[in-house]
Amino acid sequence: MQNYFLVLSYNGTHFNGWQAQGKASLRTVQEVLENTVNSLNIFCSPVKITASGRTDAGVHALNQVCSFAAQTTVPPEKLADCFNAKLPPDVRVQKSGLAPENFDACRSAKQKTYVYSLYVSERENPLKEEYCVKILAAPDLDAMRSAAEILTGEHDFKAFCASNSSAKTTVRTIYSIKILQEPTFTGEEMRVYVTGNGFLYNMVRTLVGTLLDVGFHKKSLQDVEYALTSGDRSSVGKTMPAKGLCLYSVEYKN
Amino acid sequence: MQNYFLVLSYNGTHFNGWQAQGKASLRTVQEVLENTVNSLNIFCSPVKITASGRTDAGVHALNQVCSFAAQTTVPPEKLADCFNAKLPPDVRVQKSGLAPENFDACRSAKQKTYVYSLYVSERENPLKEEYCVKILAAPDLDAMRSAAEILTGEHDFKAFCASNSSAKTTVRTIYSIKILQEPTFTGEEMRVYVTGNGFLYNMVRTLVGTLLDVGFHKKSLQDVEYALTSGDRSSVGKTMPAKGLCLYSVEYKN
Repeated sequence: MQNYFLVLSYNGTHFNGWQAQGKASLRTVQEVLENTVNSLNIFCSPVKITASGRTDAGVHALNQVCSFAAQTTVPPEKLADCFNAKLPPDVRVQKSGLAPENFDACRSAKQKTYVYSLYVSERENPLKEEYCVKILAAPDLDAMRSAAEILTGEHDFKAFCASNSSAKTTVRTIYSIKILQEPTFTGEEMRVYVTGNGFLYNMVRTLVGTLLDVGFHKKSLQDVEYALTSGDRSSVGKTMPAKGLCLYSVEYKN
Repeated sequence: MQNYFLVLSYNGTHFNGWQAQGKASLRTVQEVLENTVNSLNIFCSPVKITASGRTDAGVHALNQVCSFAAQTTVPPEKLADCFNAKLPPDVRVQKSGLAPENFDACRSAKQKTYVYSLYVSERENPLKEEYCVKILAAPDLDAMRSAAEILTGEHDFKAFCASNSSAKTTVRTIYSIKILQEPTFTGEEMRVYVTGNGFLYNMVRTLVGTLLDVGFHKKSLQDVEYALTSGDRSSVGKTMPAKGLCLYSVEYKN
């Protein structure tokens, strides 16, 4: 058996997230990928694919990293085209190759960056709606950046995590939160890039909801500090829609 | 009767272009819009909507301009929200209002800008594929810009027009062709902005195909000059896919 890695992009719109649910009615990236790969008859035994982490229903990925153990005569770097030939158009392998023996896309991950996309408009823009969330007014970016500074670092993010999370600890480290205004040909978009060593269920979407509350002066910086110290779920902003979220990159040691 | 204008955005993916075809199986922007608007029971008689120009099947629009004559008690600037409440999500009215009596979205248009989007990648990116066309290698931008200069101005664009065009004259003026590399959060994209006083059927898509041939050194600048002077349809590049094209703006006097 050899160990392989994949870098995947997917449009999450028509996926019920990453993780296989074992229900035919719930189309997931993992199931589509494993079923496709195993239908190719290039592996000696069925392949099971591990991702850097689950993405929720509707969340996109630009560079999701996966690993799997398998035996095949197909050259490692050719697996990408081999898989792509059979994959549906909303998921694509950007790169494939051999991974070190002990590489596990989930356990070996050192940090991840998610990006959340927003645009200010009175009315929806059909060219943005698939990956970008409309807000009605421009938030106070300085206030948002001050709140982002408070959230950066090692904290107990219990308040920012869905109540049904099964995580053993709710302590995580956020290395950076960057809030940028980026011009695009369909009009300006606001991007929130969050880099951390790991994220709880719904954490990035709740962080962005909280930052927006600060940006619209519905919450103060003290409220953000209170959310971190109290762990009080009712003190944070709303969980923003999945479609605005995209797994941007996963970093590994070396 | 009053004269009204609309500014529309649409994602062309699931439309068979602008123009009503009178066939239920062919979903067009004009039909969806007119049917929606006339189902609202806010107009005294059925409304017929004129656009600045037709867009082909699969072509997007950021700012399509329309006009229509109607009688209603709904305030002009409220029509946008009124229409949007019933329109499908792939088309949205960005703005509505009263237009001068003699305003006709098609006949009054002075210039239009189309934008064509491309990206360089070995493999498809599912987050770009809806509005952007993949090319395998980076073209020579300097060569493309030199060809763009030759194409700018008043010329007979017969060679760049589909053979089934019914246009009376194939002479058009291109005011500018800008070729830009624009960073986006999903990776760099190349944009070709073409502004002119009017465009023949398939003209922008064929112009971009020809510019790319020059960018890949499959055609010379002399070939481009020959296409303009000869009107020889076999001398131009291929008609690029519709999905990369977007009607960017329409300009009117004043």
